[in-house]
Amino acid sequence: MDAFAIGVDLGGTNLRIAAVSADGTLLEKISSDTDVARGRDYVIDDMCRSISNLTNRFGASRRFTGIGIGVPGIIDLQTGMVCKAQNLPDWRNYPVKQEIERRLGTAVILENDANAACLGEKWLGAGMGVDDLCMLTLGTGVGGGMVLQKRIWHGMTGMAGELGHISVDPDGIVCGCGNQGCLEKHASATAVTAMARLMQLGEELSSREVFELAQLTGEAGEKARTIWRVVGEMLGIALATLINAFNFPLYLLSGGMLPAWEFFEPHMVRTVRERSFTFRATPNETHIAQATLGNEAGLYGAAYLPWIEK
Amino acid sequence: MDAFAIGVDLGGTNLRIAAVSADGTLLEKISSDTDVARGRDYVIDDMCRSISNLTNRFGASRRFTGIGIGVPGIIDLQTGMVCKAQNLPDWRNYPVKQEIERRLGTAVILENDANAACLGEKWLGAGMGVDDLCMLTLGTGVGGGMVLQKRIWHGMTGMAGELGHISVDPDGIVCGCGNQGCLEKHASATAVTAMARLMQLGEELSSREVFELAQLTGEAGEKARTIWRVVGEMLGIALATLINAFNFPLYLLSGGMLPAWEFFEPHMVRTVRERSFTFRATPNETHIAQATLGNEAGLYGAAYLPWIEK
Repeated sequence: MDAFAIGVDLGGTNLRIAAVSADGTLLEKISSDTDVARGRDYVIDDMCRSISNLTNRFGASRRFTGIGIGVPGIIDLQTGMVCKAQNLPDWRNYPVKQEIERRLGTAVILENDANAACLGEKWLGAGMGVDDLCMLTLGTGVGGGMVLQKRIWHGMTGMAGELGHISVDPDGIVCGCGNQGCLEKHASATAVTAMARLMQLGEELSSREVFELAQLTGEAGEKARTIWRVVGEMLGIALATLINAFNFPLYLLSGGMLPAWEFFEPHMVRTVRERSFTFRATPNETHIAQATLGNEAGLYGAAYLPWIEK
Repeated sequence: MDAFAIGVDLGGTNLRIAAVSADGTLLEKISSDTDVARGRDYVIDDMCRSISNLTNRFGASRRFTGIGIGVPGIIDLQTGMVCKAQNLPDWRNYPVKQEIERRLGTAVILENDANAACLGEKWLGAGMGVDDLCMLTLGTGVGGGMVLQKRIWHGMTGMAGELGHISVDPDGIVCGCGNQGCLEKHASATAVTAMARLMQLGEELSSREVFELAQLTGEAGEKARTIWRVVGEMLGIALATLINAFNFPLYLLSGGMLPAWEFFEPHMVRTVRERSFTFRATPNETHIAQATLGNEAGLYGAAYLPWIEK
């Protein structure tokens, strides 16, 4: 009898729930908007209904393995509370895990979405066959996830892997976290928009628009390419630290800024090569690569959790 | 029948070899100078003779567990070669492990000395009972070691844990490793000497002397305390990155600069508190502490290797 698991990717905008088989085949996916405005109880009810639908549908013919849920926030592993979740304002200090389990009558595994995405890539994406890796997700902020010896590295309280808060410039831009010069202040989509403003390229340019500008000749193209050079160098500084500390075989990048890869990657790799002797000593073994599952990484990673975290 | 293991701490200056029982009791220790000038073969012969002496002495009454050797360099785990060993110039790219095993007729476990020291603290020192920790050894440079889930984290090729090369100032002092602003360029004994020179405190002051100056009133004391403030802040920047990435319960500091703890610790902890939200979220769970085994950490850690790495 084949097995299946349920994966949930609960985003601030989209809610996606999937039944996935043990070999990673997507059996069915339910997508909807996350109706954040109607409050957490509505969202959780909605999610639990879809989960029940899928478990009932596939439970007759397949062995049910469990439910993994990726949440955009820091999860306190001891209490199952969401401690920090910028896009889900009323979820803070709310016993999410307990509430879901009460409704479903079964255990669920909660996971930070960046960790889940890293695990998804390890299972079915660019990290297949690699046991130790980390992933930086370049979006509005910079999320981080780490897989160590095939499992998510949570640290002591579930807060590990906050790689977006590596300081790449101790006197740099002040971050909401209290630090200065956090990677996410210098290499996120938000940072790209801010740099474009500073360089008088435009007031509210998206990273997509700055990527398109970078393809042009002339002054605007030049400025846009400078922005991507800075992004690459900042990523390079952070990656050099990670490579020197971890000596992992694989460092993945994902998120909405990947289209501009061709513009920032050369600067990133040059900076890593200059700054990390470990990278220079392992030129063929240390890989910095694009994630391949895109938005699906977190969903698959969540579905993989019941197989490895039980 | 009690068991014992042999630990070796092969330093650029001292060679120490010990027989240690399973509960960490030192059975016997042989100390000598490392006669580097006579070449690697002489040193290895000398070491192997002492190892044989100890195994013969204790092997009659106790079960022999194995031999662990801490070496001041980066060890290629695949080949057993020492790739980088500043204080043992002719050891580079020499098959150390193979040569020792050939002489002794038995397997040995080679380990980087900073890793061994971290493991020693985990076994019998400030890290007892802690499964995940890292240690910064503040000496001429800044060494790093990491224990993850009770074992040394080597990374892919044995180069993990180079925490002295975390960039604390990307535009800072150029390091021999190619990076700029490496922690060890800003928070080692060498850095303290350089800062003292820059501040016209003295040409070749040791960190011990700068520590003693810091206890004085007047301008010299003021300057010396400024140096320790900078050291503390630089350590704080690096520790904030480590805490955000790892979420470990314990970060140890060891080495020849610990006497000045009272002068740099307040600035280090203040900086960590300002810069790491993970630290602020786990004020009672995240510990930054002094190592307690001093020079013996590496020796004990080496002796512990045969028990856990087999």
